[in-house]
Amino acid sequence: MREAYHVELENLASNLARMSGQVADAMERATRAMLDVDLALAEQVISDDVKVDDARAECEEQAYALLALQAPVATDLRTVLAAIHAAESLERMGDLALHVAKAARRRHPDPVLPEQVRPYFAEMGEAAVRLARQAEEVIKTKDVDAARSIETDDDRVDELHRHLFTVIMDREWPHGVAAAVDVTLLGRFFERYADHAVSVARRMVFVVTGKMPGYTGDNL
Amino acid sequence: MREAYHVELENLASNLARMSGQVADAMERATRAMLDVDLALAEQVISDDVKVDDARAECEEQAYALLALQAPVATDLRTVLAAIHAAESLERMGDLALHVAKAARRRHPDPVLPEQVRPYFAEMGEAAVRLARQAEEVIKTKDVDAARSIETDDDRVDELHRHLFTVIMDREWPHGVAAAVDVTLLGRFFERYADHAVSVARRMVFVVTGKMPGYTGDNL
Repeated sequence: MREAYHVELENLASNLARMSGQVADAMERATRAMLDVDLALAEQVISDDVKVDDARAECEEQAYALLALQAPVATDLRTVLAAIHAAESLERMGDLALHVAKAARRRHPDPVLPEQVRPYFAEMGEAAVRLARQAEEVIKTKDVDAARSIETDDDRVDELHRHLFTVIMDREWPHGVAAAVDVTLLGRFFERYADHAVSVARRMVFVVTGKMPGYTGDNL
Repeated sequence: MREAYHVELENLASNLARMSGQVADAMERATRAMLDVDLALAEQVISDDVKVDDARAECEEQAYALLALQAPVATDLRTVLAAIHAAESLERMGDLALHVAKAARRRHPDPVLPEQVRPYFAEMGEAAVRLARQAEEVIKTKDVDAARSIETDDDRVDELHRHLFTVIMDREWPHGVAAAVDVTLLGRFFERYADHAVSVARRMVFVVTGKMPGYTGDNL
């Protein structure tokens, strides 16, 4: 039983790694579509989202099969449940990338972002994508140190997100209410994506090591 | 094994029902705190959120124990996993009520909402809370018809949420950028809460009946 369990868990973990790569690509492209006003790229992210949904369904089926056939207990059981939670977060990250792409499409051929806030979003996008790639690396390399900059990147996204509000709320904000609404929602999409990515990366450390990295108050 | 399984599943289901009641209360109070500019009520919602987090941890432990000791398969296994997903959504609903309460506190003693949009939020709050109470009813009464108005209430929240944007984006919006940002975020909190409530209610129908109600494209 132990060997079959480990083979199946390995399959599940590699599917989660692939899914992490998919949602990292999705957010990377969605960010570029938004910054470069690239409609074709936005459309690609939108039509690719179904692949993430399918991957999640496949991960859940693998987890069900693992539970039903191997009936793992103790740490093995918690590992499978961590994988199920990770798949749910990854699908949500795909949805958030989709929302960014749809915002870019909705305003096309106008840019959805005023020039003034582009640098913040470029940096938030980079940090968010890096978080998703770290989750992928942890699984692929079993090197949990790959997750070492997780907290730093997440803090940076939160900091940029908070700073955005001071920019929008400034009396000198010259771009009007509609742009402020877009910036508010887009900022929240990146912040949520980064939160989920942190949760996925930490769960992946658990899947690989059986130990949860330092608890910082979120749910794992 | 079957009898022990059903007793433990019953316990888990009644904890989920209690959690649904908690997050319904939280959103009802958060909405009232926001509409009535009631700081004490907002503080209560904020300090009560830890109870929802604890209830979720307890549900997860019950589900782990059920899986480890009973090793359910087929529909029984899917039922326990549906309960785990429901507990996650319920905790998220608690977080969203918390966000509404914090917004009310942040602007106190000013109201966070301009008078013009109060009726929309009053109605969104009512529909969102009703959705959470339906999830509770399904479990308590095992009457799946209690879930019959789920789609209607969810559609109504979506409709109000969309309408809010047309109100904010209107050239005549006289309340400025800061109020538009608050209204945007608050609208999103109610919309996400309602989405999670629908997912919980449908999962509860599954927990009670072993059948998922009509599939409408979201993940269950």
